[in-house]
Amino acid sequence: MKLGSLKSGRDGRLVVVSNDLAWCADASHIAPTLQAALDDWERLAPQLELLATDLAHETIPRERFHEREAAAPLPRAYQWADGSAYVNHVELVRKARGAVLPDSFWTDPLMYQGGSDEFLGARDAIPLADEAWGCDLEAEIVVVTGDVPRGASREEALGHIRLIGLVNDVSLRGLIPAELAKGFGFVQSKPASALSPVFVTPDELGERWKDGKLHGTLMVDLNGEPFGRAEAGEDMTFDFGTLIAHLGKTRNLGAGSIIGSGTVSNRDADGGPGRPVARGGRGYSCLAEMRMVETILDGAAATPFLKHGDTVRIWMEDKQGRAIFGTIEQTVVAS
Amino acid sequence: MKLGSLKSGRDGRLVVVSNDLAWCADASHIAPTLQAALDDWERLAPQLELLATDLAHETIPRERFHEREAAAPLPRAYQWADGSAYVNHVELVRKARGAVLPDSFWTDPLMYQGGSDEFLGARDAIPLADEAWGCDLEAEIVVVTGDVPRGASREEALGHIRLIGLVNDVSLRGLIPAELAKGFGFVQSKPASALSPVFVTPDELGERWKDGKLHGTLMVDLNGEPFGRAEAGEDMTFDFGTLIAHLGKTRNLGAGSIIGSGTVSNRDADGGPGRPVARGGRGYSCLAEMRMVETILDGAAATPFLKHGDTVRIWMEDKQGRAIFGTIEQTVVAS
Repeated sequence: MKLGSLKSGRDGRLVVVSNDLAWCADASHIAPTLQAALDDWERLAPQLELLATDLAHETIPRERFHEREAAAPLPRAYQWADGSAYVNHVELVRKARGAVLPDSFWTDPLMYQGGSDEFLGARDAIPLADEAWGCDLEAEIVVVTGDVPRGASREEALGHIRLIGLVNDVSLRGLIPAELAKGFGFVQSKPASALSPVFVTPDELGERWKDGKLHGTLMVDLNGEPFGRAEAGEDMTFDFGTLIAHLGKTRNLGAGSIIGSGTVSNRDADGGPGRPVARGGRGYSCLAEMRMVETILDGAAATPFLKHGDTVRIWMEDKQGRAIFGTIEQTVVAS
Repeated sequence: MKLGSLKSGRDGRLVVVSNDLAWCADASHIAPTLQAALDDWERLAPQLELLATDLAHETIPRERFHEREAAAPLPRAYQWADGSAYVNHVELVRKARGAVLPDSFWTDPLMYQGGSDEFLGARDAIPLADEAWGCDLEAEIVVVTGDVPRGASREEALGHIRLIGLVNDVSLRGLIPAELAKGFGFVQSKPASALSPVFVTPDELGERWKDGKLHGTLMVDLNGEPFGRAEAGEDMTFDFGTLIAHLGKTRNLGAGSIIGSGTVSNRDADGGPGRPVARGGRGYSCLAEMRMVETILDGAAATPFLKHGDTVRIWMEDKQGRAIFGTIEQTVVAS
């Protein structure tokens, strides 16, 4: 089952979306919003599944699904906690700012609590007041949980994953060093992120959802050129069950919590940071990695951070080449 | 006007509470939940004010307001961001763990993004799985905002403050050093916090709400003994307008965002860290400060962190000695 929220009010209007994302059916008679569905998932999910079946069989009224009309599936959420599960990414970005990677990072998940009061829709612009802030994209996988009781194990946590999607976790690289130096994590350096047009249930993903990881190529284009083709199922040191269990060690997690993987990042066969797509590699899921690799390969970073007018596309394709979660496609605008 | 949420479902049931907290009137015909009221505040606040007037005049059905039946006014919220506005506290706690305070901390607000998916009611127990985690209370002031547009100034931000209340921002001191050393802020070391039984509009607070600060003595008792009597209006380096503007520099803040002051803390007249209440001082609003001062005065910390069975009370009194926001009264329990 695929679920989305059409733009309407603060929380959108829940729709069930067809597998090919061409059609949707209003689901507001079952639950007005995705949060409401997550709040009562055991009872409502079967009804939504029936609606999805009816939509697939074309036995109910349907409307065209336009990704540009989609809000974030959760336009606001009660929690957004983002991991750094691809430790390769952490190592590269730390290297980029001259910081070392402690050994414990390979065994103890790194996470931060993010702002969840505003998620952008997949086609919404990225507002950027000052290009000097060093705006970066970060293409990631997210899951949405049900209620997770405090102290849940990894295995229990996996059973509470309701939905899977993509995020562009926008970062302001220029503001990060000073903010992290203060010791309390990100505040100003993490503006609103954008979510994929639809979120998808684990069963709908079949073989792609395995061992608490999403398997598939995370496609990232920058200004129409291939930028990232990383495999999301590879090099993910901490699966989502581990991330959720880490977050929930000392407290309950509420239904609708969004948990991020951190920037998807692959190592080379030789353990190195790989190569840009243009040089035959898998590329990167954020500019900071690209810039670090350029520095290693060429002595200096050539790729600038995002400027006004730049466009970012993030998606993942099924075997027929269709976007599973729809496509995040954002333009950076002055504001 | 004073607003509370009686325990009911995930978000409670909105009630208007009498000034003396003895009575309440159901407000669910105006807005089912406090979040719903905040989502449409311009339209609904006047209706809630009328209800409050009717309650004061005893012209409508009313019921007894029991603080034990109160959920947190916002049992879950879309944002919880906590400042460290009493820089004196930051200096002491840093000293306690051997870290220095950068000069910039006196001019650049320190904040962290906290988990907002679960706030405890004022009488809810503090669940603590392991006493070795070093459980601490932190008595603070909070404000709740309406929608704050990105880049709002301090003065604009002040105009978006809808409600004021208290929080016990529970911290697990034993988990903090390792977590902060990872560089991304708090995750496991900040379990669910408890909010005061009611939140209060700025106008209702009269002279106590001034210059973006709450003025009054923040009362903290530990196991029935006076522990803290700090003046919330003193030594607050950053007022709430400044904190909100800091948080909102790069993104919009959604209605219902809860912003904390950080642990309330006063300096002595001589600039020192003051004295415990038992020694004639104003005491402290968290155990970590008390332990640091004991270390300074006596060479070693004598006050332990919270153990199972310990009780914490946090409140602020009006001139008649009544609790303005009700009383947070929590017992630590094994779980």
